[in-house]
Amino acid sequence: MSHGGDIYSREISLDFSANINPLGMPEAAQDALRAHIADFEAYPDPNCRALRRALAEKEGVGPENIVCGNGAADVIYRLAAAIRPETVLVTAPTFSEYEKAALEAGAEICRYHLREEAGFRTDAGILERIPPRGAVFLASPNNPDGGILDEGLLKRIDERCRRLGTVLILDGCFGDFAETPLRIRPQVVIKAFTKNYAMAGLRLGYAVCEDRILAEKTAARGPCWSVSTPAQIAGLAALGDGDFILRTRRLVARERGFLSAALEGLGFKVYPSKANFLLFRGPVGLDEALLQRKIAIRCCSDYHGLGPEYYRAAVRTREENQRLIDAVSEILREGM
Amino acid sequence: MSHGGDIYSREISLDFSANINPLGMPEAAQDALRAHIADFEAYPDPNCRALRRALAEKEGVGPENIVCGNGAADVIYRLAAAIRPETVLVTAPTFSEYEKAALEAGAEICRYHLREEAGFRTDAGILERIPPRGAVFLASPNNPDGGILDEGLLKRIDERCRRLGTVLILDGCFGDFAETPLRIRPQVVIKAFTKNYAMAGLRLGYAVCEDRILAEKTAARGPCWSVSTPAQIAGLAALGDGDFILRTRRLVARERGFLSAALEGLGFKVYPSKANFLLFRGPVGLDEALLQRKIAIRCCSDYHGLGPEYYRAAVRTREENQRLIDAVSEILREGM
Repeated sequence: MSHGGDIYSREISLDFSANINPLGMPEAAQDALRAHIADFEAYPDPNCRALRRALAEKEGVGPENIVCGNGAADVIYRLAAAIRPETVLVTAPTFSEYEKAALEAGAEICRYHLREEAGFRTDAGILERIPPRGAVFLASPNNPDGGILDEGLLKRIDERCRRLGTVLILDGCFGDFAETPLRIRPQVVIKAFTKNYAMAGLRLGYAVCEDRILAEKTAARGPCWSVSTPAQIAGLAALGDGDFILRTRRLVARERGFLSAALEGLGFKVYPSKANFLLFRGPVGLDEALLQRKIAIRCCSDYHGLGPEYYRAAVRTREENQRLIDAVSEILREGM
Repeated sequence: MSHGGDIYSREISLDFSANINPLGMPEAAQDALRAHIADFEAYPDPNCRALRRALAEKEGVGPENIVCGNGAADVIYRLAAAIRPETVLVTAPTFSEYEKAALEAGAEICRYHLREEAGFRTDAGILERIPPRGAVFLASPNNPDGGILDEGLLKRIDERCRRLGTVLILDGCFGDFAETPLRIRPQVVIKAFTKNYAMAGLRLGYAVCEDRILAEKTAARGPCWSVSTPAQIAGLAALGDGDFILRTRRLVARERGFLSAALEGLGFKVYPSKANFLLFRGPVGLDEALLQRKIAIRCCSDYHGLGPEYYRAAVRTREENQRLIDAVSEILREGM
């Protein structure tokens, strides 16, 4: 199974398959790494104390509500293992690690299929499918389409989950790219430094848990020292760069508009996105034709509910986006 | 629970509680990290291809026999989850993560208590305790005593495990510090870069699995991208430093002799070790008295089979070892 971002098995000069901030890693984070290489000799703080204090301040909660992990994926697995739900509801299409983590925790999977005609937007029909004493994974913006949850609907889902004794886990990893952040905070919110701070190689994610006992149980699952020293150091430094996210959001909003219009101009159907990537429908084989030109996009054929004609492309700088559009135009002109 | 090495909750100027190579991280690894900071933006290779190829060459196996993880602890958890044994046999005292990983995988724990009078050496009595269709975790050198397994006994344990359909997992994380490496390779051997290459903060461990299907199942457990880019880059560079381990072994052998004799000279019982640490018996409260002087040793009261009078101290440079001995002498003279 490929997740995108695997630039190690093929020669790639332009990677649109991973959704990394086109601004790159904040300078402050790079400087901190460079200055602290000797500190990588000692064990990391297993409790991520300094980082959790900074995150707690940013999120307006206590450090006891924060659980850090070796990337958001690690947080997802620890959460599933700590909750041990009998049934887990996920949407389709969505990020496959929710389902994999739930299966490893022994849960049964229930999938709510999102409708293509509705642009894969989650609708109120999901309310009837929420399992009692289970768990629900939702993402906003959702991967691979970038669509956001309606705030009113999220509120109703949250209320229903609480009534049914079900844990609602909202994956907000791409939330920093959306112009309007959600004002409702479900029981658990997952975030990461991977995409917004361009630190995918360092592996750093975290959960904000309303329930401190769940936070403690989640942190206790799995091996000790799961968050490396470079991840803790770079994460802490990145949080200090005040307007980095604001600059990111502006760039991504502008370039998302450009890339979306250009793809539509080529005759593709593009789905509404508030993230730093776009889901679109194009000719089967487009990804392979682009790979011949050393450009990677993500074919979405392995997402439940999608097929080989669906592609996800990251929003990057104007110059890079233009190169993608030029390459696709050329492929369409010349045939594949 | 403390594992030692937690230098973040107290002010420490000399850390003997973590068993890190006193030579520090190889220069080649530090240089590689410094040169590749920009590469930490992309996702790591989820399959650790370049690193696994290098490890396969070093270990004389195929890359398909190597599974990398986010430190040896992560490898232990993935192995336990992949094997899913009904019963797991561990010795006592030993590293607590074997038991914790086995419990998370739903196994029952069976403990073989090592005798103090025998210097906590594993004896042939263990053969009768090997569970059928289960798993056995052994460490050589063992943590916290540093004792090594008798090669003849290991051979018999290995044979019996194979006959009973039980997986024998040998933790060889401290093997590089022993002068004579084991010539028998059990079904699974765990190794790490943590201690020998002083990369505890980077988190890098691996398993050499005889059975490629077990290797594949182990790699598939848990989240994707568990080994960070810095860990892969530094690990690969460290392997290139040809005589680093040899220099380490010489230094540790000399200093282990010095520290052991000095502790015995203070009237403590010191157990035979082939690792870069020593288990000894001293007065209860010695660790707290040393902490007052900003020196950390590991109190072993939380090891099954040990009590608060047992301590583990890392073997470090002559100057540091002398400072430890001076501080302990002073404490003994002045009373605690």
